[in-house]
Formats: sequence, C-alpha cells, structure tokens
Amino acid sequence: MGSYYMGEEIVVIGCGASGGTAAQFARKTDREANVTIFEKSEYSQYSKCALPYLISGKIDDPKKLVEFSEDWFSRAKINLFLSSEVTEIKNKRVYVKRGKRIIEKEYDKLIIATGAKSAIPPIKNIFDKEGGLKKGIFTLRTIDDALGILNYIKNKKNVVIVGGGLIGLEAAEAFYNKKLNVTVVEMLPNILPSMLDGDMSREVYNQLKGYINIFTDHLVTEIEGEERIKSVKIKNKNTREEFDIPADVLIVSTGIKPDVYLAKSIGCKIGERGGIIINKRCETNVKDVYAVGDCTEGKDFVTNKSFVVGLGSIGVRQGIVAGINAAGGDIELFDGFLQTRTTKLFDIEIAAVGPISDNLDNIISGKFKGLTHPEYYPEGSQIIIKVLCNVRDKRIVGAQAVGKNVAQRINTMACAMLHKMSVDDFIKLETAYAPPIAPTIDPLAAACEVVNMKLKRRS
Amino acid sequence: MGSYYMGEEIVVIGCGASGGTAAQFARKTDREANVTIFEKSEYSQYSKCALPYLISGKIDDPKKLVEFSEDWFSRAKINLFLSSEVTEIKNKRVYVKRGKRIIEKEYDKLIIATGAKSAIPPIKNIFDKEGGLKKGIFTLRTIDDALGILNYIKNKKNVVIVGGGLIGLEAAEAFYNKKLNVTVVEMLPNILPSMLDGDMSREVYNQLKGYINIFTDHLVTEIEGEERIKSVKIKNKNTREEFDIPADVLIVSTGIKPDVYLAKSIGCKIGERGGIIINKRCETNVKDVYAVGDCTEGKDFVTNKSFVVGLGSIGVRQGIVAGINAAGGDIELFDGFLQTRTTKLFDIEIAAVGPISDNLDNIISGKFKGLTHPEYYPEGSQIIIKVLCNVRDKRIVGAQAVGKNVAQRINTMACAMLHKMSVDDFIKLETAYAPPIAPTIDPLAAACEVVNMKLKRRS
Repeated sequence: MGSYYMGEEIVVIGCGASGGTAAQFARKTDREANVTIFEKSEYSQYSKCALPYLISGKIDDPKKLVEFSEDWFSRAKINLFLSSEVTEIKNKRVYVKRGKRIIEKEYDKLIIATGAKSAIPPIKNIFDKEGGLKKGIFTLRTIDDALGILNYIKNKKNVVIVGGGLIGLEAAEAFYNKKLNVTVVEMLPNILPSMLDGDMSREVYNQLKGYINIFTDHLVTEIEGEERIKSVKIKNKNTREEFDIPADVLIVSTGIKPDVYLAKSIGCKIGERGGIIINKRCETNVKDVYAVGDCTEGKDFVTNKSFVVGLGSIGVRQGIVAGINAAGGDIELFDGFLQTRTTKLFDIEIAAVGPISDNLDNIISGKFKGLTHPEYYPEGSQIIIKVLCNVRDKRIVGAQAVGKNVAQRINTMACAMLHKMSVDDFIKLETAYAPPIAPTIDPLAAACEVVNMKLKRRS
Repeated sequence: MGSYYMGEEIVVIGCGASGGTAAQFARKTDREANVTIFEKSEYSQYSKCALPYLISGKIDDPKKLVEFSEDWFSRAKINLFLSSEVTEIKNKRVYVKRGKRIIEKEYDKLIIATGAKSAIPPIKNIFDKEGGLKKGIFTLRTIDDALGILNYIKNKKNVVIVGGGLIGLEAAEAFYNKKLNVTVVEMLPNILPSMLDGDMSREVYNQLKGYINIFTDHLVTEIEGEERIKSVKIKNKNTREEFDIPADVLIVSTGIKPDVYLAKSIGCKIGERGGIIINKRCETNVKDVYAVGDCTEGKDFVTNKSFVVGLGSIGVRQGIVAGINAAGGDIELFDGFLQTRTTKLFDIEIAAVGPISDNLDNIISGKFKGLTHPEYYPEGSQIIIKVLCNVRDKRIVGAQAVGKNVAQRINTMACAMLHKMSVDDFIKLETAYAPPIAPTIDPLAAACEVVNMKLKRRS
C-alpha cells in the first residue's frame, strides 16, 4: 500500500467515534502525516448511540446514522478502509484481512480503537447449538444488530430487555413506539443504577411505569423455546420466587466487554475491568501505541476508581487527545473522567455527572424539586436536581437531574466539578436569569443551598 | 420600635431582589439577629424583570410578580415595613417616613439597597410643565409604571421605544403581543449593544424585524404633541436626516442611574459610573454599612472596568454576600462579575457572558452555526455560538449565543470563564451527549475548535 504523504504513518484500528475522531485530529495536527483507518465493518463512522432511534423509526434510514462518510474521510485526506479487519500486529506492522486477501501496513504510530462487545449474562439456554445467541435474542451495538431486530420484530408482541441502564431503557422506549409490549428486567434495586441514586431513579421509574413493565431486583434466569425464544423465566432476587413471562424478543443490554485481543497480543497492559490501560496522553505501555474508546479503561475523576469507558463523550475526547499526540502534538486528558451522561426517555430528560452516592464516602446531598422558571412565570415545568458534595470541604462531587433542559445544567455542574468548586462558590456563580428562561437562583444553586441548610441544621 | 430578638440589629433599605435577599440570608446566618427592611413602595419583593410580561398579559395579575410576600417575610421572622421611606441616616439610626409620621430605628449593620432610577435621555419636550414625563411617556421599572402603561395603551396604536437593550426589546415584544405597532430606536449601530457583537446582534435583528420596526444608529430628538405625545422626531446619526413617526406612547429604556442619595449623605464613596463602591464583602467605605444591587457599581471579571449593576442575577448574589457578612458570616464575591445575561424575544433565546469584542484587546473569536442536536437526529434546531478568547493564552473571555437552550449553555461558559479555562481545555470537558439531547462535541466546544482552526491557519 502506497503512502500519499511522505510524513509519519499513523494507523488507526477501528472507525467508531473514538477512532474516527483520532484520525481527524491527527490529520488536523500534522498535515504531512499519512493517516489510515482500518474498520472491520462495512460502515463508516456512525453513531452507536442512535441505534435505538433507528429501531423506533425516529431515524428512518441507517445511512443517516453515518456521521462521517467515506467521502468525508477522503476529502479530509484520511485513508479509510472498510471491511478491513486487522488480525495481527507485529514488528510495527498491522496485518489486515480484506476479503480473502491479507495486506500489511507499517506504522510509526498506532491507535487502537477496537471498541467493545456486549457482555452476555449467564442465562440458561441463551445460546443456540452453534454457540450464537438463540433466535430472537439480540444485542444492540451495531447497525446490523438494529436491522436484524427491526426485521425480526415484525408481527411480534412481547419484548423483554435485560438491563435497565441507558441503552436498555432507550431500547425500551423504541420498542414501545413500535407498539410492542415491553418488559425491562434489572438485577439491581433501581433502573439507571450507575447514573442515579435510588431516590432519583424512583422519580424516573414512576414516570416510565405508565409505558413499560419494569422489574427491578429481578434476574432473567432461563430462556424457554426450542427453535426460538418463546418466554423467559424471571426470578425475584429477594423472595427467590420465579415466574414466566412471554417473550418473542429478548434484548441483552447488561454492559460491555472491551475488545482487547489485538492490544493484548502486543503486550498492552489490561486493567482490572478488562480494558486497555492508558495514560493521560492516551498512550498504552507499548511504545508508539495509543488506545481510545470502549476498549480502554478510565479513572473516575472523583473516586479515582477504574471503569470501562462506554460513553461516546469520553471516547471522542480520548480520540482528540490520542490523535493530536500521535501526530506530534502534546495534549493531556484531565485527571480522570467526570462521566457526564444523559438520555431522554418518553420525553423525560435525565442527566448526571460523577459517581452515585453509594460509591462515595463522607458526602452530604441537597435536593431541589421545583420549577425551571420563576414561579410567577406560566411556562415553568418540574425539575429535580440533586447535588452531592463532600461534607468536609463542601466540594461538589456529583449531580443528578430529571426534568426539562437538565443536560445543559449538568454540563455546568461538570465544569464546576472539574474545577473542584464548592457549593458555596457555586451559589455565587452568576447564572443566566430572565423570567422566560430561569429564576435568579437557578435550581442548580437552589440544590447547593439545600446542602448549606442541612449542614447548618446539623451544627 | 421594639426588637423581637435581643441580637444584632440589621436594617435593610429597600426590598427589591437584592435587599430582600440580603435580609433572607442575614436571617439564615444569625437566628438571633433582628432583621428589618424598610421599603418605600407598597409592594413586597417582586420581580422587576417580569414587568414586560405583565404588559403582554402573559402574567395576568400584578400580585403574581411578588416573589416573597409580606407573609413570607413575617414567617421568616423578618420585619418588613412597606410604604416606609428612609429619608435620613444619622448616628447609626435611620429615619423613616411612614405616612405622616417619621419613625427612627437604630442599626448595628445597615444594608443599602436603594436601587436605581431610569436614566432620561436629552429629548426635547420630553417633560411636561411640572417637570414630569409628558403624558404618554413612560419608564418601566415598577409595577406602578407597568399598570400606568397598561391603562394608557387602551385603544392606542403606535408605540416608540427608546433603547434597544434587553428591557427595550422585551417591552417591544410585549407591545407587539398587545397588537400595537412597535418601533424601537437605538442610538448605537446594533440592538443589544452591551450584550452582543455586531454579527451576533444582526442574527437577532434579522429575526425581530419581521415583528417590529427597528432603527439603529438613530436618535429620538424631539417629542411632538402638546397635552400628550403625538409623534416623535427621529434622526439618522449618519446622514443627519430627520423624520417624524407617529407615537401614542413612548417608552424610555436607555439605562439606569443608581439611587445613591442616602449613601452619599453618610459619606459612601461613589464611583465613576455613579454607583456606590463596595468591596468583595459588599462593604462600603463607611463602617458597618453594606450596599447591594442597582445602586452599586461592579467590576467586570475580565476587563476589571466599572459598570452599573443592572442585573438581578448580580444583585441577588450581592444580597447573599452582604446578608451573610452583616450577620457575622464571612463570604466574598468573586474577583469581578461575569455579567451572564439572557432573554427570550419572540421565542428566540439569546444569552451572553463577559464583555463584547469591542471592549476587549488581543482576542480571537470562534463562531459555530449549526444544530443543537446531532445532524442525523430530526429534532435539531439552529444554534449560533460565538466564543471570544485571548489570543495569547487561549483563555475564554466571553461567549454569546442565539438559539434553543442557549442560556444554560452560556452558564457552562460562565463557569469556564470563572476558572479561566482555555478553549483547549474546554474541548476536553465532557459534555452530556445523547442523540435526543446534544451532539458528542457540543456547539460550545465546536466554537472553541473554530478558534483553534483559525489560530492554526494564522501560524
């Protein structure tokens, strides 16, 4: 394979959001570099997070999910090879399976963005005889998954979703919109368990239960049906009681498993969570090898604990940093990730940043339940904000919110957390005020003030 | 007048947003203190910013504007005296005119929150023989002003608004909703001149001109009509050309003049802008005397230049700080004000923080015009973000935005500015991402990236 430039050879494995972004920023940083992406699927960089909306029909054509097309990469002078699976890395070369051929390419810098696979929970009879998922059982990580689901659910009635996290609930809404009867089964006591505290989760639960069936503290233990799934056995974790519910379709969304096969093969260190370990420059322990996205582990900004990166927002920022550094720039990620995240379920906006209370010590929280607008203004809608802060220095260490426009509010909290702001300082931050927009003391600050009032009552 | 508590006597002059807030926070800080407010009008703490919505009819009852009622203050154990004008301060006592009586009250700490009056521009024949505004000419700062306007505009047709700032344009929308023919006359080349750069202002102008007439670079030079206003003479500042337009009603909204009579009388230092000078604890130069709100001056966080405080968001934060300190607490404002501000005009949300470009040196700006949502998601709407940053250290020194949900985005920028974040760091901030909410790279970060691209092109 020839090089279009005489500059450095930068090779990216995987054209998901993080890999594609890395290539983009490498190109911007060094116009002389030769930037090449190998992507094993046939799709150019597309939005995985949008797959539920492809199922619901909100997005009517899978082509629309492609955020950066082959053409785009070509115009950006990035060599993108689709349907090209890197099978081996050796002596600073990648070996790529394209159809029946194996081609090879040298690199100066390598960026691994191999992503992750869906984790499959231990459910009896979930696999067929060939070791694949039984007919009617799906994961939801690729366009092909979504198209397979869309094709299968025609004339089906009941769908069971294993896992009440972000993807599980977004899928639940999609199936509801497709007029299926939807049941979500969550092992933990609350839905969105890694995002919301129990009390905040229940606020969401109370609104969702009008649309879908939700079993928390329940496990799917067994699949029934020979040829294809017919029903599932569900077990109450507390009472140990078991019962069957009909299921024409089962969606597994219980987390991800980083795809680290290639990284491991060249000696990249793998962390306790199974992801590639990288530093703030997105370098692995192997010289000239970077890693980004769902195949990596991150450290939480507040707790410093490891987690598997499963958020596009993080993957993209890793991509920026790895791309710039691989191309000779010098940029570092912050000291850990804030894990800002959001979703919209049945028109309810939900957002959070930082760990939930259960993962924190010595915290005090403030919760504000009120209106987005001044009380006298007729267009206010309900908003609930919970702020978590360290009891000693009053530093904000987390925030969760449910209601209109909460995602942008959580961004402000993310910025505050990054700068280790205290609730006292946050109250002094001038937020935008106008009657048709927000009150003088925004709900964010009101939640901070609740923390102060609680502390005063204690003293 | 007896004291309800044996604690310190804290007296607040004025029950606007800043005075009322100061009293509230003094009460919270010291439960033993005796907190007293004297308010010259008959109204308890109400929202001045909501007056345009009282005119439009969006808010149908002036009572609704009251945010904290007499009852509320009474429950909070704050002594609120309405229709009580402080006329003199001497020997740590205030003298208060209540009807025909003068009462006096000692204080340990005094908080001056006397507010401001509307500035009246030099327009020929604007006053009547008694020295008041001619019939049909109004300012818009009090409930009484708004009620007077509402009463006067019945069966009127043409309204002219002098001043194309926030209040002027909010009033313009209100009159439009009341089916009047509205003309706004702005002396400067752009509307919202202290909030937006020319290019951003024009984006708003282009949308507003479908509803109202706007003359920029024009002055109202003369009022015509004997008994009452009939028409106004308008002058083009560039061509010097003059012409008449019919005006049944004229609204003056060309800024404010701090009311510092009492403060001056006890020796409080007054600044170059005519407001009371206070430090970060909201103390004046006179011992035990604090000042807050529209009667004070602030320093801009970025330029360090003085400005007259005319924003509720600032007044309220000064109130918090003065109240806490007057009651024995210890809290400081930040080093200057960010001047976060927002409005909604004809459903267009506009927000900004920091100075406009004209007031800054050595800056480079990045402008992003795109969608609030990922491009593939059908519900995105147009958003324009402009970020101003220092060309040397890339620190963000201002941001302006027009479009859906921009106020909350500007809050994030305000938090970033407070912490002197650079555009490079802002791009790394994890913002909330989900297809129905926002793209992975939020428009805010996209505008920051435009700055980087411009700098790269220069180098």
